[in-house]
Formats: sequence, C-alpha cells, structure tokens
Amino acid sequence: MPIDPVALTADLIRCPSVTPVEGGALVLLEKLLTEGGFTCTRVDRGGIANLYARWGRQGANRTFGFNGHTDVVPIGNQDDWTVDPFGAEIKDGYMYGRGATDMKSGVAAFAAAAIDFVQDTPPDGAVVLAITGDEEADALDGTTALLDWMAANNEVMSVCLVGEPTCPSEMGETMKIGRRGSLTAWFTVNGEQGHSAYPHRANNPLPAMARLVDRLSSHVLDEGTDHFDPSTLAVVTIDTGNPATNVIPASCTAAVNVRFNDAHSSQSIIDWFAEEVAQIKGTFGVDIDTKVKVSGESFVTPPGDLSDLIGNAVKAETGRTPELSTSGGTSDARFVKNHCPVVEFGLVGKTMHQVDERVLVAQISQLKAIYKRILTDYFA
Amino acid sequence: MPIDPVALTADLIRCPSVTPVEGGALVLLEKLLTEGGFTCTRVDRGGIANLYARWGRQGANRTFGFNGHTDVVPIGNQDDWTVDPFGAEIKDGYMYGRGATDMKSGVAAFAAAAIDFVQDTPPDGAVVLAITGDEEADALDGTTALLDWMAANNEVMSVCLVGEPTCPSEMGETMKIGRRGSLTAWFTVNGEQGHSAYPHRANNPLPAMARLVDRLSSHVLDEGTDHFDPSTLAVVTIDTGNPATNVIPASCTAAVNVRFNDAHSSQSIIDWFAEEVAQIKGTFGVDIDTKVKVSGESFVTPPGDLSDLIGNAVKAETGRTPELSTSGGTSDARFVKNHCPVVEFGLVGKTMHQVDERVLVAQISQLKAIYKRILTDYFA
Repeated sequence: MPIDPVALTADLIRCPSVTPVEGGALVLLEKLLTEGGFTCTRVDRGGIANLYARWGRQGANRTFGFNGHTDVVPIGNQDDWTVDPFGAEIKDGYMYGRGATDMKSGVAAFAAAAIDFVQDTPPDGAVVLAITGDEEADALDGTTALLDWMAANNEVMSVCLVGEPTCPSEMGETMKIGRRGSLTAWFTVNGEQGHSAYPHRANNPLPAMARLVDRLSSHVLDEGTDHFDPSTLAVVTIDTGNPATNVIPASCTAAVNVRFNDAHSSQSIIDWFAEEVAQIKGTFGVDIDTKVKVSGESFVTPPGDLSDLIGNAVKAETGRTPELSTSGGTSDARFVKNHCPVVEFGLVGKTMHQVDERVLVAQISQLKAIYKRILTDYFA
Repeated sequence: MPIDPVALTADLIRCPSVTPVEGGALVLLEKLLTEGGFTCTRVDRGGIANLYARWGRQGANRTFGFNGHTDVVPIGNQDDWTVDPFGAEIKDGYMYGRGATDMKSGVAAFAAAAIDFVQDTPPDGAVVLAITGDEEADALDGTTALLDWMAANNEVMSVCLVGEPTCPSEMGETMKIGRRGSLTAWFTVNGEQGHSAYPHRANNPLPAMARLVDRLSSHVLDEGTDHFDPSTLAVVTIDTGNPATNVIPASCTAAVNVRFNDAHSSQSIIDWFAEEVAQIKGTFGVDIDTKVKVSGESFVTPPGDLSDLIGNAVKAETGRTPELSTSGGTSDARFVKNHCPVVEFGLVGKTMHQVDERVLVAQISQLKAIYKRILTDYFA
C-alpha cells in the first residue's frame, strides 16, 4: 500500500522537534523506513540525532541520495499563531504547523516516494536517505556528521537531491544548482579617546571607520558569473555607543555580510579585507581588528545530467520547466557538494520560519510524485 | 581691613552649590558686598539665583564689570575624593574642594579686590559684579538673566572681565580674548530594512552614512584666522544597534561636534551640512533628518585697550606676559560679548571638574592682587 505523504507530514509536524530536540521525528521515520526495507542507522553526534537509511547494496554504482532535516526553528510567540504550531491542522486546503514547508513535507515526500519506488520497481542500485536533526542551528553535528560517518563506513551517494523548499511562489518554478558563499566580518577600529574641542590631541576612530565602510560598500565585487548573480556586500551595523557629544570615542565596530559567487572564495574576500584595512590603517594611523566568520563557500553543480533529470520530472508533473537558480541563503547542500553532485528541489517556501507556517496539501502529494518520477527516471 | 580671598574661597567652597542649588554662596556674597558699600540685587529666574552688585553711580561712563559663577559641577563618586569635597581642607599649600578652581577662588578674588579697591581709592566711575548660579548647566537663566535684567534697568558695564580659570599650568600664562563657537549636529539616515542576502531589495542607510561622515570629516573648514586656531569637526558617534547579521537595518544615526572660529557662523555651518546632506540623498536615494543644537557663536574681543590693561597687570604681578588665546570650550563670555568688550583671565584650571579639585592657596591672593591692579589701572 502506498505511503500517504500528507499523513506522514502531519505525523512529523506533531513531533515538536525544535533544534536540537529529536522530538520523535527520526524515530518515526526509522520505523517506517525499516518496515519499507531500508537498513537504518542512527548517526548521533554532539547531542544531535541523525538518521541514515539505505535500500539496496552498499557501494552500488548507482546510488540516489536524498537529504533533508526534521528539526524546525522555534515557534516564536505562540499567541501570534492562529493554530496549534504542532497540531498539523488542515484549513482551506492548507496544512498548518512549524515545519509544514521547512521541511517536514519535503522529508515526508521523499521518504514516501523512496519506499513506494523500491517496493514497486526494485532498482539495480541503491537509494539512500540522509536525514538530520541539525540544519536550522549551527549544523555542526548534522549533515556533516552523516557525511563523516558515511566516509568512515564506505557509504556513498552517486548524486543527491536536497528536499528544501526552492520555489518562490509556484510549484515547480525553481531548482537550486548551487548557492552563494556567505561570510560575516566584524571590524573594530581603535583610536584614542579625547575631548571634542581638541581633536588633534585624540585619534578619532570614526573617520577611519567611515572611509573603510565607504570603500567596502562602494566596491563592485563582480558582475555575476555563468550561474550566479553578482556577489553582494551588505553593511549591517556600525556602532559606537558614545552618548557624550564632547567626547571623541576610543573605538567603533562595524559588521558586513558578504554573499559571494564562484568568482571568489572566502579566502579571497578575507585577503581583500586585509588590503583595505592596511590602507585605512596607513592613512588614519588607527588600529583595526578584523574577525571573520565563514558560513559557507560558494558552490555549483553545473547544469547537466542531474539538473536535466530533475527538470524533466518537474516538467512532467507540473507542466513547468524549473529555472536553475543559485540564489538564497545557505543549506546543507554546501556540505553535500563535497561528496557528490547535488541539486535542491522542493515546494513553495513562502511561509517558512513565519507564524502560521503552512503548505498546500495538494503540493505534498505532487512533490512525492515528482520525487518518485526522478527515482524512476534515474534508474531507468 | 582688607578682605582675605583665601578665607572667602573656603567659605564659598563650604556652600554646596551644585547647579541649580544656590547653597548659601550668593547669600554670603550679597552680605559681604553690601557691607562693602555695594548695592545688591538678586536677579533670580527659572529657579536659578543670580546676584548683581554695583558700587558707584548707575550709568557711569567708566564701569568695570566682573562676571563669574558660584555654581559647581557634581562631585561624582564621593569615595574617589581623598577629602571632603565641600570641606575646603588645606594640605601642602593647596586648598581642596569642588569649585576650588572653577571658580569660587576667582569669584572670591574679584569680590575681595573690588571691595578693597572702592574703599581704598574710590574711583570716578562704577564697579559691577554680575555673579550667576547657572554656568555649569544649560546657562539659560544665569548670565543671560543678569544681562536681560541689566538692559531692562539701565545697568551697564563698559568692559567686563570673566574670572574663569584660563591658565593651562602656570599662573599668568594665558588670557582668553574670545572663544570658538560650538554646535552639535545629529544626522539620521533612513533607508529600508531588508535581508542581507538581497541588498537590492532593501535600501541600506549605512553606505550613505559612511559617505556622509567621510565627507564631513575630510573637509578642511579653514586654516585658522588672525586670532583663532583652525575650526574642527569631531564625529562623536555612529550608531545602528542592529545585532542581526542577516538583516539590513532601516536607519542609522551619527553625531558631530563642530568648534568653529570667526571664519564661520553656526548658520554657515548649517548651510554646509544641508549641501552635503542633499548630495548624499541624491546619490543614495535615502532620507536624512538633521538636528542641530548651537551652543554658542564664535566671538573675539580684538587685542587692544582691554587686553593691554589686563596683560600689563598680569605682567606686573607675575612677571609673565599672558598669551592671547581663543582656545577651549564655551564660557559665559559668549553672552557678555553682546553687551561690551569682554576678556577672560583667571588662575590655573588643571583640576577643574575632577575629583580632588584644588587650588594653590598662594594663587588666590595673587589673583586678587592682579584684579585689584586692573581696577587701579583702569580708573587711573
């Protein structure tokens, strides 16, 4: 009997799996996948629960992988919700709940598709599900833990589809073949405090900061590349906290967030920062501390077999040919790309992370159909 | 019998006259000056006590005025003091206490000098003391109230000496013949909030702010004038308060403090701000709110009779020819200059506003001698 992805989504929403809590979601999937003929292994690390499930021979030449997560972001203020955030209530064709779009519906759709597929038409190869409970937080012990464990245990995926929501407003519009890299840098300019009436006796850090921010934000990083929009730099804050207008402050901090394409690496951006900082230090005679946090490098799976496979299946089920995009923030695809070609495709993500997060019930079944067709075509 | 300015300083220090509290200081002076033959009038306004005292005929052709204040700044943390801040304790040649230098010693010195002078050698003219209890705070109801009252009552000063401490480290080094103007401006740049990953969908106020601050702080206002150092602009704070690195903020505020010489007026500075703001608004498509608070215009009493008179007296008593300066912050001379020529001369101000504020006891008597010689020479 086919697995109902709508009922499975509802069951998963009812598991209160706010990162890092497992909440019963992976336990439920492990039971279902085991019953469906999959070999399941819990790959827990650092207090995080993860699930690895394989149908078919280990190390098969053709192994199709799915990646997704069952953890969800906090609900925020419960009073702002019109429904129980963990109730999976259905109203006017929508199922409501935290994780309804991001991404319990996606996990339910690929788990249902995979179980049905291997039962209906057992393939010459393997199907792998790598499901994590740590995508929404720091992701240190999530998909990375699964990939580490796979490498240590000779488990492989030939290709991987991440089931994150990828469509801005209509089902089938967009798949993601890559992501920009992201990093944040904090610059602290240190000068010397003094009296506003005697600026020559102080060393004001603010003119240096203004010049630095002006130079960084005026710089054109690139004009875009084959598969990417132009890289961007956003100055997100400049702070001094000096309430006294007769005092020149000692220091000031600014933060910038960079989303960079494949014309750059985090290191090339860091090198550029260092050049700019050195120039400002020389001009203004200030000290500047730079702290950088890299969230991910840019990557792309160039258009080819994998994107064609997914695009054709989406076209067949929805009538739409999905655009190949590299926009948006980071996802666990940034880890998977080190293992095998990876593409992301899922449903409409409009309400993700919002109150009254919801998914069109019909889209869940449609997504299962797309995923099943992808498996069928891949092993055909 | 001559008035002892040291004992009078001690008596005044023992009056806890932290602005706006009168604390007994003006009551004490009114009694002393009345006994010395002065006609005294309390000119209170807006909860502030002020004292006007005149010896001699109202409207005399030659009327020498002294201006000063008996209010003091707060003591800060009393535990940081090694003495009672209102105790007037004498140790190692210094008298300690809040107001010891700024400026109860100055008031004591000119009150003692004036009383002795009119008794010893009654002049053909008048001597006026305009003493306020509101110099350290907003000064809205202090010297201004005295000058308003004088204008309404046909009271005049031909010239005025403000007894503020003017010497950086040695008695007699410096007199002030003017002051720079001062104003503070707050610029709030308003853009549109958004996600750091999609800067083109937001309108980030921070690049506009950085350019504005860079332009303002790079601009050379002037190279100095005959009697003034170059004007200065100090950026004192830039604040956004955005903790989220994935959010582009909606607005940012910066404050700048300008000390300007007689090449400018507050209006010319405000006009310059408006030009710069218009240019930034045009370039970046942001809104910018500007708020300006003018603390005082620049002014100068050009070197001449009054500065010669004071310089010669200082030279005779200390051996030093005082430099004619226009440096420093604001003082009540900025109000007096609208009434008559005004110069400032007083003792060494090193510890003003600090804990353990103190004055060399010997300097108090020396200052009285200087003030008395100035009166003698003026009426000679």
